[in-house]
Amino acid sequence: MHNLLSSLPENLDEEVFESIHEARHVRIERIISRGHTSPEQGWYDQDEHEWVVVLEGAGTVRFEEGREVHLEKGDHLVIPAHARHRVSWTDPERVTVWLAIFYH
Amino acid sequence: MHNLLSSLPENLDEEVFESIHEARHVRIERIISRGHTSPEQGWYDQDEHEWVVVLEGAGTVRFEEGREVHLEKGDHLVIPAHARHRVSWTDPERVTVWLAIFYH
Repeated sequence: MHNLLSSLPENLDEEVFESIHEARHVRIERIISRGHTSPEQGWYDQDEHEWVVVLEGAGTVRFEEGREVHLEKGDHLVIPAHARHRVSWTDPERVTVWLAIFYH
Repeated sequence: MHNLLSSLPENLDEEVFESIHEARHVRIERIISRGHTSPEQGWYDQDEHEWVVVLEGAGTVRFEEGREVHLEKGDHLVIPAHARHRVSWTDPERVTVWLAIFYH
């Protein structure tokens, strides 16, 4: 995909994860949500660190330890490896585009 | 800086490079241009690979080997380590915000 903000998937019944670029120590993904929360049950518990920014829309990340971070367009967040977390809300009225950088 | 698209520097006489996040294998930078080209002379010749996306505005990256890539909002590009290149144009009428991921 040449442009992160166009060529949005038509079917958004589920959240859509797409790999943009991959190298030895870094993985870049685009994530598209519309009203989704994820995972449906439990928490993400990742081996990699993640730096994430909202490019369009808005979402909320909740950490198991209690902290909740609301992200609007341009807001970014570091999610350390094994910091258990979930996306507890995304805007149901519009598409939310996340750009996520995973790294060791 | 909490938001990549706000808190823009007031003085844009020069291009502004800001570190957003740094880890062992990855470096995330915000670059703000307005009509700048860079470097002023010669080429960038970097030890790290770079993945770059335009978040606002527009710019053109020219490679020494001849290829020229025009990037609008949402467009992204990989610049391999030691691929000599320069920013040959950025929109003089508005701010261009680049997000650059440098990695080994």
